[in-house]
Amino acid sequence: MRLVVVGGVAAGTKAAARARRVNPRLEITVYQEEPEPSISECGLPYLLSGTVSGRRRLVARTPEEFARDGIRVLVRHRVEEVRPEEGRLLVRDLAAGSVFEDRYDRLVLATGARAVPLGVPGSGLEGVFNLRFLTDADRILDHIRRHRPRRALVVGGGYVGLEVAENLRLLGMEVVLAQRPRRVATAYDPEISRRIEEHLRERGVELRTGAEVEELRGDGRVREARISGEAVEAGLVVAGVGIEPEVDLARRAGARIGTTGAVWTDRHQRTSLPEVWAAGDCAQTRNRITGGPAWVPLGDTANQTGRVAGTNAALGEDAEEFPGVLGTGIFKVFDLAAGKTGLSEAEAAGAGLEAVAATIESRSRAGYYPGAGRVLLKLVAERGSGRLLGAQALGPGADKLTDVCATALWGGLSCSDLINVDLAYAPPYGPVLSPVIQAATVLQRRLSQPPK
Amino acid sequence: MRLVVVGGVAAGTKAAARARRVNPRLEITVYQEEPEPSISECGLPYLLSGTVSGRRRLVARTPEEFARDGIRVLVRHRVEEVRPEEGRLLVRDLAAGSVFEDRYDRLVLATGARAVPLGVPGSGLEGVFNLRFLTDADRILDHIRRHRPRRALVVGGGYVGLEVAENLRLLGMEVVLAQRPRRVATAYDPEISRRIEEHLRERGVELRTGAEVEELRGDGRVREARISGEAVEAGLVVAGVGIEPEVDLARRAGARIGTTGAVWTDRHQRTSLPEVWAAGDCAQTRNRITGGPAWVPLGDTANQTGRVAGTNAALGEDAEEFPGVLGTGIFKVFDLAAGKTGLSEAEAAGAGLEAVAATIESRSRAGYYPGAGRVLLKLVAERGSGRLLGAQALGPGADKLTDVCATALWGGLSCSDLINVDLAYAPPYGPVLSPVIQAATVLQRRLSQPPK
Repeated sequence: MRLVVVGGVAAGTKAAARARRVNPRLEITVYQEEPEPSISECGLPYLLSGTVSGRRRLVARTPEEFARDGIRVLVRHRVEEVRPEEGRLLVRDLAAGSVFEDRYDRLVLATGARAVPLGVPGSGLEGVFNLRFLTDADRILDHIRRHRPRRALVVGGGYVGLEVAENLRLLGMEVVLAQRPRRVATAYDPEISRRIEEHLRERGVELRTGAEVEELRGDGRVREARISGEAVEAGLVVAGVGIEPEVDLARRAGARIGTTGAVWTDRHQRTSLPEVWAAGDCAQTRNRITGGPAWVPLGDTANQTGRVAGTNAALGEDAEEFPGVLGTGIFKVFDLAAGKTGLSEAEAAGAGLEAVAATIESRSRAGYYPGAGRVLLKLVAERGSGRLLGAQALGPGADKLTDVCATALWGGLSCSDLINVDLAYAPPYGPVLSPVIQAATVLQRRLSQPPK
Repeated sequence: MRLVVVGGVAAGTKAAARARRVNPRLEITVYQEEPEPSISECGLPYLLSGTVSGRRRLVARTPEEFARDGIRVLVRHRVEEVRPEEGRLLVRDLAAGSVFEDRYDRLVLATGARAVPLGVPGSGLEGVFNLRFLTDADRILDHIRRHRPRRALVVGGGYVGLEVAENLRLLGMEVVLAQRPRRVATAYDPEISRRIEEHLRERGVELRTGAEVEELRGDGRVREARISGEAVEAGLVVAGVGIEPEVDLARRAGARIGTTGAVWTDRHQRTSLPEVWAAGDCAQTRNRITGGPAWVPLGDTANQTGRVAGTNAALGEDAEEFPGVLGTGIFKVFDLAAGKTGLSEAEAAGAGLEAVAATIESRSRAGYYPGAGRVLLKLVAERGSGRLLGAQALGPGADKLTDVCATALWGGLSCSDLINVDLAYAPPYGPVLSPVIQAATVLQRRLSQPPK
């Protein structure tokens, strides 16, 4: 019995490792286009500043280590065609330049996501990069080393853009962050974005929101950008204008593509094709709150869907189920943590839910305990049912508050359930009543008032 | 309508403040024996080392501030008798030395807990203290200032004993921690206690577990202790051998005392007496997991039960319900955090539950991200149902892991629910799959194996 996995980052390697565990006799091959498999992509921004020192640290497992578990990982191999009716693949060996045929009994697609191209004149200049792969980080670092740019332009204020801006700033570069949306971190509600923007400015990032990067110019190598009509010096450009699921292979093989643009999967990570599963950034899943389709290209979800796909593909049955996502995420930008789970107020409205929200300011420790920092927590619940819909947290301990709210959402708790939740208190770890309890208390009061 | 609250620390002041909020016309009087109300008792150990600088910081609200909200707080007043059939009280004014009668329509008992006396010869020597009240901290600090003891003995290895040991050590004192139980933090399972003990020793605390403090000796002032037959120098002794609910007043008034020794209350914090509620460390509540009675004398629970008692007493009806506790707690000792929620493995067995446990070691950040520390997480679940019963966490981020597990317990989640829970991931905040997910995955495997 032969399992082939297409893609060797988080979901693909997890699927392969898991398949090996549940079925020791399976033949397992992973094809991977990039030269290294099993990369911790979320660590790439930190490689730029040296916060993470040495690219080797981001390689979780080498092909040799996989081989010890009887998993064949072939890097620099691109799967170019899948023929599901025959169980066959066409694979290009990028090093040799040759194409060969392979066969599978079961297939896991973990083709990931690709960067949306910047698509402005001058995007092809030397010194203009995306940051998706370890090789991208290598190239950026090489460019910095050779040309020592004084000033960098980061295009896009999502997670990656913000993290890249921080890490280039830590190198001492002047950093301009430009983007079309009028505020950064648009997955969050405006009051959170505003605080993130304040923090970026405090740390010396020049913010240009609602701005259009129209052109990049240089003499072979990038020298400046035209942003909304104005010339801005930039000796390095990193584009983080978004990613999109890599579904070409799946589409050509006839797999159903979901409304999010990612490969449709059922609750067992099966695609519409027989004996083909999908996992990670290329796969569509479900939002637990709205019940609708979701595409959440994050590392933890990739590991979880990879695990489910690997188990089910190895056994050839619907043994494990992936219950969907809440869209939980967190990022750090300089000294600020921002986390979110479930729906923002705007997203709740967009999903046709009547939402009520409460935002509180609190502290990360007892007020009298040294080092207590300001924390903001916003809770969103559904009017009528009181069902919790989402939370956004900002400041020290935002990871804890986000995770508590995510667990509450996971359990389907309502706002009133949170008022007396028995959380851990000691002065170094929070105020006597957790910000979660404080926010729930305020929100419950609003929920019991008639709508304005 | 007149509400009297007996006790002005966490539960009493919360009940009074809450009662004021829901019923602006209520007359509210709080009687409090100690000279300051509204003390953050959990902060007392940190006052010793100066980590919290200035006793004033632990006074959350002064009588003058309460007066502005129309709450009369009378300090140095001891309620000596309650006559529920008449709605009358006898109150002693400790400053004036006089006794007067007062009346109430509704009464909240928030008499707290008292330190279990050390009860060995020499306990009355100068330099031997408990640490329950701000005045205790004042006296300890005064003793240290005047006599500069080189060496301190802390008796008892519960939360308070451990925190006091740390804070005296931070002052540069030699610290001996002695206790009768064979391990510290007995609410935790042995492997956790062992790690805490290692950490204490690394930080220079001399541990004497399974030891009997037999006598304290000195010339008026304590000089040494006899511990299991051996003489140990000690110029300061702080006893933290436990606390017990202060129920004398309630008992004499005829209130039902629960099996835990605390004042019995129903789900609305009502006692067995008409128009009398109880809250905080003097009150018994329910354990959500076992369904049995619980006495959990902690600050956050005191605030929550105080809130419920205050609301219900103010309205004179069963408006709010306290849903019970999980027994969640956390403490810091030097650089180590230890948190717990629900039942330990031993407690689960004691409650007649067939428990299965899994302990994992993980990290507080992605392995490649600087500053990642070792984290231990133990999950306990019920065989058969898979219902989560408890969790214990140790190391950086133990507060987060404990709170996530507490929320899961609160929502009645099972181990399998946690395998795919959508928590927040970014490299500075944890490994790609949370220790909660890692531990649940291991535990789920054990749950599906037949018992050994």
